[in-house]
Parts: sequence; structure tokens; C-alpha cells
Amino acid sequence: MAPFLSRRDLQFQLYEVLDTAALPSRSRFAEHSREVYDDVLALAYNVAERYFANHTREADLNEPHVIGGKVKLVPAVAEAMRAFRDAGFFSAHHDEALGGLQLPWVVMQAVQAHFQAANIGSSGYPFLTIGNANLLREFASEEQKQKYLMPLLEGRWFGTMALSEPHAGSGLADITTTATPRGDGTYAITGTKMWISGGEHELSENIVHLVLARIKGAPAGVKGISLFIVPRYRVGEDGKPGASNHVVLAGLNHKMGYRGTTNTLLNFGEGGETVGELVGQPGRGLGHMFHMMNEARIGVGMGAVMLGYAGYLASLEYARERRQGRHAGNKDPESETVPIIRHADVRRLLLRQKSVVEGSLALGLYASSLVDDLHTGPEEGRTDTALLLDLLTPIVKSWPSKYSQEALSDAIQVMGGAGYTRDYPVEMYYRDNRLNPIHEGTEGIQGNDLLGRKVTQSGGRGLEVLLARIGADLTASEELGGLGEIREALQKAVAQSSAALLTLLRQAPELGPDLYLANANSALEMLGHTVIGWMWLRQAAVAARTLPQARGDDADFYRGKLHAARFFAVHELPKVRAHADLLASADRTTFDMEEAWF
Amino acid sequence: MAPFLSRRDLQFQLYEVLDTAALPSRSRFAEHSREVYDDVLALAYNVAERYFANHTREADLNEPHVIGGKVKLVPAVAEAMRAFRDAGFFSAHHDEALGGLQLPWVVMQAVQAHFQAANIGSSGYPFLTIGNANLLREFASEEQKQKYLMPLLEGRWFGTMALSEPHAGSGLADITTTATPRGDGTYAITGTKMWISGGEHELSENIVHLVLARIKGAPAGVKGISLFIVPRYRVGEDGKPGASNHVVLAGLNHKMGYRGTTNTLLNFGEGGETVGELVGQPGRGLGHMFHMMNEARIGVGMGAVMLGYAGYLASLEYARERRQGRHAGNKDPESETVPIIRHADVRRLLLRQKSVVEGSLALGLYASSLVDDLHTGPEEGRTDTALLLDLLTPIVKSWPSKYSQEALSDAIQVMGGAGYTRDYPVEMYYRDNRLNPIHEGTEGIQGNDLLGRKVTQSGGRGLEVLLARIGADLTASEELGGLGEIREALQKAVAQSSAALLTLLRQAPELGPDLYLANANSALEMLGHTVIGWMWLRQAAVAARTLPQARGDDADFYRGKLHAARFFAVHELPKVRAHADLLASADRTTFDMEEAWF
Repeated sequence: MAPFLSRRDLQFQLYEVLDTAALPSRSRFAEHSREVYDDVLALAYNVAERYFANHTREADLNEPHVIGGKVKLVPAVAEAMRAFRDAGFFSAHHDEALGGLQLPWVVMQAVQAHFQAANIGSSGYPFLTIGNANLLREFASEEQKQKYLMPLLEGRWFGTMALSEPHAGSGLADITTTATPRGDGTYAITGTKMWISGGEHELSENIVHLVLARIKGAPAGVKGISLFIVPRYRVGEDGKPGASNHVVLAGLNHKMGYRGTTNTLLNFGEGGETVGELVGQPGRGLGHMFHMMNEARIGVGMGAVMLGYAGYLASLEYARERRQGRHAGNKDPESETVPIIRHADVRRLLLRQKSVVEGSLALGLYASSLVDDLHTGPEEGRTDTALLLDLLTPIVKSWPSKYSQEALSDAIQVMGGAGYTRDYPVEMYYRDNRLNPIHEGTEGIQGNDLLGRKVTQSGGRGLEVLLARIGADLTASEELGGLGEIREALQKAVAQSSAALLTLLRQAPELGPDLYLANANSALEMLGHTVIGWMWLRQAAVAARTLPQARGDDADFYRGKLHAARFFAVHELPKVRAHADLLASADRTTFDMEEAWF
Repeated sequence: MAPFLSRRDLQFQLYEVLDTAALPSRSRFAEHSREVYDDVLALAYNVAERYFANHTREADLNEPHVIGGKVKLVPAVAEAMRAFRDAGFFSAHHDEALGGLQLPWVVMQAVQAHFQAANIGSSGYPFLTIGNANLLREFASEEQKQKYLMPLLEGRWFGTMALSEPHAGSGLADITTTATPRGDGTYAITGTKMWISGGEHELSENIVHLVLARIKGAPAGVKGISLFIVPRYRVGEDGKPGASNHVVLAGLNHKMGYRGTTNTLLNFGEGGETVGELVGQPGRGLGHMFHMMNEARIGVGMGAVMLGYAGYLASLEYARERRQGRHAGNKDPESETVPIIRHADVRRLLLRQKSVVEGSLALGLYASSLVDDLHTGPEEGRTDTALLLDLLTPIVKSWPSKYSQEALSDAIQVMGGAGYTRDYPVEMYYRDNRLNPIHEGTEGIQGNDLLGRKVTQSGGRGLEVLLARIGADLTASEELGGLGEIREALQKAVAQSSAALLTLLRQAPELGPDLYLANANSALEMLGHTVIGWMWLRQAAVAARTLPQARGDDADFYRGKLHAARFFAVHELPKVRAHADLLASADRTTFDMEEAWF
């Protein structure tokens, strides 16, 4: 079977493109070294290979189902959870005082990447738990931390995020789940939550739901939303799970993919009182939830990257082995057939996959490194870092989600009929990844976030920082040979994107908010491609610098990087222009379409 | 549930864009009238709705499986086959002498479209049978026709096409199935065939496999391939199926979608002799098979169109009903939420689907009308018609296959999490349609066919005819108001495509065949988009002419056509340029990529 991840590329991204080995010079990471990080990554690989990759298809074919009111999963999931817990990954990035290793977020993200690549479904449980714990660390009271955070960090309890309701998915402002004060500082929670991943299972001693709800009498809209801890089992004085908290499983969602992750409809306050504790400030629930959203959205983007990457590696292995046909110039039917990787169109399909998955891996890890900079980088740069990260987040979330899907389609195409069957994993990755452009904010939401908020925030400073950083990398690569086409294509994309945004922004006052946002998707496409083009320049520059000293496999690796960068520059970046033109024209076509005309 | 097909649009395409009502002026169709066609289409709708749409999901969830050596399907499939047979659709386009109605192919294709939209899986059985019968009508001897064709036309026996082998899918030149003369004019067939749809089931009294094989001693390559009739049960003197012919089911393929159509691995000559009869000339098997390929590839393209169309209608219905959020300009959280169809990005997703599925439906029916012209049109135009049809066929096959997939992705996106679940049909259509870019010649094969054969065939006459027809429609629409942007965008796309092809063709001698074809996919994309742009001009011109007299729903329908044409012109046609530039530059990136660099 093909490997699920390229350890060589991960090393390249962390230590050659990013300077992860220099992080131990920051005080929080003073106990670390590259060896520590490598040991952690090796452990992640081993656990992912042995305990996660072993049941990916099994879990896909045997989706969660309810027996006697309990959600049943294939038994290998519980073993995987134990192995993940024993490896200490639930708390690895937390303070030593909390039992963690204080791992940088970029390393933690690289650790998680192994599990996403090996088994996206099973990795959902720990990653939701990690996200849940991150939020509690930030906003919970000390008492709540003692009660809920510690068992989460130990991996004994699992967590969820319960935002959506049947009538309110993307439109969270309209949620109606209600929290009624019980007089003792706690609340009685009633309502129904939809699309809750990991909402019910037998994998952990307890489940900690983080629930958005309105305190009785709170105003309409987002300002009336508060955040609550709602455990599946009430927690006794001894800190142990006790009686049911009346969070009732109302149904499972049956999905096209991502089947390993149970997805539930939950009723709160059915057959008894559901008790919740307020987290943070009343009326600030959505803000608290979104405080962690950058990390969550990077996580979704990284999941997409790793699914695409695993598909690329599977189709690459197949293309090297499968023989079919001859070159167009060869008319001798008695000559040997060639491995399909020799056909130009197969190489196109593989190069596109390579350029998508390696380009977006670079972006996901770059964004993760910004999360570290935000917390541990030089003080004076943090405001800019925060704005850049904010700007990049909708791209990190949506570009890999969309383009990994295209890459996975290419993987199926390379393998032909074989790729369309369950004998190979690519059809499953294709089904799995189709969720990524939907959850944690749809592509439409990301486009509006990018153009409506992030581009203009703080007077456009985030965009300025982005352009300055791209400009710096363009300048630094000037003296390197062989990057001409890559640099030119990126310069053109940057110029087209900036000009389009300026033109649109100038018209913004007359357009009004709805027409201004009408082609937000083109902004996402245009800036997304440009940013990935930048990530390829960064990779190509490292390769150009290192290649002269490289030998053997290493030299091939760097040549591959240069060639994939060239592919992205020549085959993909020219697509920016059509999006930039559309955006600059403030085209009204979608805006003017009337419902009755469909 | 959403309708699976727009009868209004089908009428528009057949009678307003195409002049199907004029076909009865041709002698073969002299008994017909528009009323006859409408009755046939109404019958198709009723049978498709009642007997095909009723078990689409059931067949998806219960894929074919083997019990006691027999392939079991859900029982509704057999009922659907009876209803299809009772309606006379197996033979409707054949001569009256053969029991047919002599329906024009464009009407027959419209009939088939109903079944593809209602249930792509179950429609596979009759359509394979119809294709099989078409081939026998063309090449079988009179005796063979009596023996095999008649039961196929009566729908008592079903047919398959058995081309691929486990080691030879796209590379048919390398098949090894062998035909050994038995001394009585028949042959003993031995070998294994892969990906055989409808290869084994209990739906019909017999199965007629059309098998490509090499007569013992035949030369290597395509020139050694002959075509054979191989029945599942040997046929006695009385014309009835008798003893087993030792075609043995070696396994079923388990596919991501298209699950209703059994797909098999078959062994010929296992446990006894498999007897086959030669069809047509020895050594001409592939040519005979490909004689029917235009029709087969239009059929695949139409299947893709109809899946995309059904998905569009489902997501449209959802978007009208589902309420979520408010316009960006509305900050009042107490105001009512709006149906999501009011959001610009949802309208973009719906408009793209509309532009894709209605544009490619126009193309599929246009190509079908060319099939009619080829057989019954004015004699003097037939050579040009044949060349145009040849040129369009790879586009008709691959453009809808690729873009319906994107449209179906848009349909899922409109519906968000709901679209990702089995509660709605779009995730199934998405899985189903992913086969279409693979079977009956992959996208890579179509690109090579278009650029390597069809563009240059007969001194480029096919391309000349295409450009002349587009030019004529551009001229004819000059005086119509409101088509400015549509016409300009198309003119630009035509100019860019022609220039790119000319530039490439000039370089062809130095490039050599492999480098000439290296970016064949861009030729497919570029000409595909241009041709769909042309189909939109044709539809927009009809709408512009008719709108002034139209009222109510009709007026809305024509406004929708004009607006979708504008969308395609403004949002899609500008994508042609990047492909044209790449093609003209004879870019070597994919060609130069070495295997070791991946």
C-alpha cells in the first residue's frame, strides 16, 4: 500500500522552508531541539500507521449505528484512541504544568497531519477534544478547568462543539437553544443541536459539549448568544461522571464520507433537566467560540491537505506500476507497453496533484507557524502577525478544501476504473474530503469573511503585510537562477489581484454591501491562487539554493519541487486573471438574477 | 421531491432551438408529427417516473451481490425493464420492419434522457442493449440478425460490450482474449474481460456479449482484433437459449457510484467451451466497435448532463425553501431570515449549474440531431456533418462529464451539510457521475482524440465547419438586442481558440507527436467552453426573439435563458484564454517532468 504521508516533504516544510529548528531559541520552547520534534513526529507516524491507518476502510464500510440507544463504532477506533492518549498527544502543546510538552503549534499541526492522512474519520474525535480543551483553557474559570479541562487533556473525556441547529447552520445568529438560570449559578439547557460530530459514542468516560445558547430574555442576534459547558454525564463532587444529564441522541446523520466520525442530532433537556455552566461572559458566546476559529479552520484546511496528499501518493504509486499503451510516436504494437506515468496527460494529473497538495501543505504549516509567532514571536510584530493570520485563515480553510477535491478527482482519473472502486482508497478520500468545503464555515462564508472583513480590517493592514512578505520573498529570490517564470507569474498574479481589489474598493461606497460581496468567491479564488503561488516561490527558492549541493534522491526531490513550482506558475496562476477581471468589474450577474428566472 | 427533469427545457431545446418538428418532412419520418414526438416523450416521462425514479436510492444502497453464483438486484429493476420493454423503447428508433417507430435519434436521445435522469443505474441495462443492437444491425449477417438482433429489439435478451481486459483498459491494442476456429465457422473464445457492465444478471432470457478478441495467429496491435457475438446461453435451432456457454462470472466490481449497474469480471471458456460467432470482417473488430462510438459517447455525455440536471433541480428546490441568514446590508436580527436563493453566492452556485446543464443539454441534443442529419439530412451536407460530429464527439462526451461533476459539487454546496447526507439525492448523483469522465474513453483519451485526430482530420475541415456554423449564428444574432456581452465573449473565445490551434499546428512538425499532444487537455477545455458558449448564444438568440411575445412563466423562462447565457459569457468564457495561451506556447512542463522527481 502507498504511504499515507511524505515524511521527506514534511521535513522539508518544517526545517527548510520554515525555520522550525530555531523555535527552541524562544523561552517557551527552550527545552526543545530539532531532535525532540523529530522524535515526536516519528511517534506520530508510528501510532498513525499502526492504530489509525489500519481501520480507515473498515470504518468507512461500517458507519456508526445505534444499538440499544448506544452508538456503535468498529472496535479499532477505541484502540486508536487509547494509542493516541498513551502517546500524550491530547495535551502535547499545553503547558508543562498541565502535563504537556509545550510543543509549538506548527509541530502539533504536523503531528495531527499524520492522523488526518491515516484516518480522517477517527482523527475527528481527538481533534474535536483538543479544540474543545483549547477553548476551555482560554475562557473557563479555574474551577471549570479543574473539573473539565484536566480530564480532556488526559484524553479520558472527549469534547464537542455544538453550534448549529436544524434551522440554523450557517446562520448562527438565529439559534434558539435556551439557557434558563437555575438559581445556583447553573442553567437548564433546552433545545436541539444539529451536525454535532462526536456527539455520542462510548469512547470516553464523559463527553463535554460546548453549547451555544441564549440566556432567557437575551436579545435577538449574536449579541444574545452565550457559551455553556454541558457534560453528557453530570460531574459529581469527586470529579467523576455520574447521572445522565439528559442530552439525548435524536438521530445520526448518514454522510457520503467522513463516515468514521459519528455525526449526531442531539436534544438537550429531554426526559429530564440538562444542566450547563456558563463559560466566559454572557452574550459573548460566539466571540469565545470564534476566538478558537483560526486554529479550527487551519485544522480543516490541513485535513483537506492530508486527504489530497494521501490520494496523490496512492495514485502516484499506481501510475508507476500500471502499464498501459505506448507513446504517440511509437507505432510498433509488439513493443512493450509503458508505465502510465510516462504519458504526458497522466503526468499532468500527477503534477497538478503535487502542486496542489504540497503548495497547500506549505500554506497550512506557514499559517500554523504564524499561530506560534502570535504567542511566542517578537512582541513588536504580533499585531501584524495577527492581521496576516486573520487574512490568510479563510484561504487556509477553503483553498485546500476545494483544490484537494480537484486533486482527488485527478487521483481517481489517473487510476481510471480502478480508482472508482473500493479496491483503492482514492474514492473514499474523495467522498471524505467533500465535507471540507462545507463544515466550519462554507466556502460562501469564507469568501464573505475574506472580502467583507479581512481585506478591509484595520485599514487593509493585513493585505499590506501579505503583499510586503510576498514582495520580500520575490526580492530575496532575484539572484537565484531558474526561477524566472515562477517569479514572473507570481508578480503578475499579485499585480492583477491588488489592482482588482483596489478597483473594487474604490467603488464600494456606491455598490453597497450586497453588491460589493456579490463576487466574493472570485476574491477567494484569486487571492488563494496567489498565496499558493507565493508558497511555491518559497519552496522553489529553497530548492534552487540547495540543489547544487544535493545528490541522488535529494537532488530529485529538489528538482521535483522546482518543476511543480513551474507547473503551478504556468498552468494554474494564469487562471487568476479571469477572477480579477470579474471582481474589478463589480459584475452584477448573480446579484441581478431573479428567483423566478431559475 | 424535486422533479428529475425539466420538461419545459426539453421542449425548448427540441422545438425552439432545434427544429425537431420539421423532421417529418424527411421521408423516413413521414408518418411522424410533433404530436407523435410529444406522446412518446410523455410516455417516457411516465415510465421513468413510475418505474425508474422509484428505486434509484434503493439500488444505490443495495448494490448487486452474488448469491449462489447468481447476481441479485433489487426486484424493482426487473419491473423497470418490463415497463421499458412494454413501452417499446428497445426498438423505437429502428425500422418499422423491425418493429420500430423509426424515431429520429434526437427524439430517442430525449427519451433516454428521462431514464438517465430518473435512474442512471437501471438505465444502463437497456442502453447497453440498444447500443449492442445498433452494432449488430450494422455489421451482423442476416442469419445473425435473425438469431440475436430480434430478441434484443424485443427486450427479451440484453446486450453488453466486452472490450477491456484486466491488463488492457484504455490500451485496447493489447488485449489477449483469443478466438480459436472450431472448424464449423464458429470460434472457441478464451480469456478474461474486465469492467463489463450488465455482464451477469437475471433480468433477461439471455445476454449477448459483443467481445473483442484475436483470432489465433492474428497480428499484434489493433489490426489483429476481431469482433464476436458470445451469448451467455448457447442458442438452439429453435432460437431459444439452451446450454451454458461457459461465460463465468469471476467477480463484481464495487464502485463509488453507478451502483445500480452491475459491473463484472468475466472469464470466457472456463469449465467448458465458450462458442462465439465472428461479426463483420476479421481484423476489423475495433473499427466495427468504434463505428458505434459516436452514439455511445453522446450517450455518456447525455447521462452526465441528466445527472447534473437532476442535481440542479434538487438544489434549486432546496434553495427556494430553506431559509437562512439575511442580506449583508440588513443588520436587524429580529427581521425574518431569507430563503437562501436570495444570497448572491447561492445564486452563483445555481447559475453555474444552470449554465452547465442547460448548455450541455443543448450540445447533447445538437449532436444527436447531427446523427439524424447524417442519415436523413440533405445528401450534399453529409460529409461536413460527419466531420463536425466527429469533431464534437470528444467534447460531447467529456465536457458534460467534467462540468456536471462541478455542477453537482455546487448542488451539494448549495445544500450544505444536508447535501452531504443520504437524505437528499445530490451526494448520490455526485458519486454516480464521477464515472462519466472515465468510461467509454477517459478524458485523456478524448483530449488526444480531439487534438490528435479530429482537429486535423480531412485537412481540418471539421474545425472549418464548426467555425462557419458559429460564425453564422453570430451573424444571425447581430440584429437582436441585449446579446452584446454574450456575442463578444464568444467571439473572443473563438478568436483565442483558433489562434492557439493555428500557432500549435504551425509548430507541430518540429514538436513531434508526443509534445504536440502534451497539452491536449487544454484543447479540450478551450474548445469545450467555446462550443458551450456557442450553445448559449443559440439559446439566448431564441429567447431574445421570443421574449417580447411571452407572458408569465414563459417570460420568466426566457429571461432565465438570457441571464444564464450572460453568466456563462461573463463567468466562464474568460477561462478560455489561459488554456489557449498554454496550448499556443506548446508548454513542455508535463512533458519534461521525470518520474524520479515525483
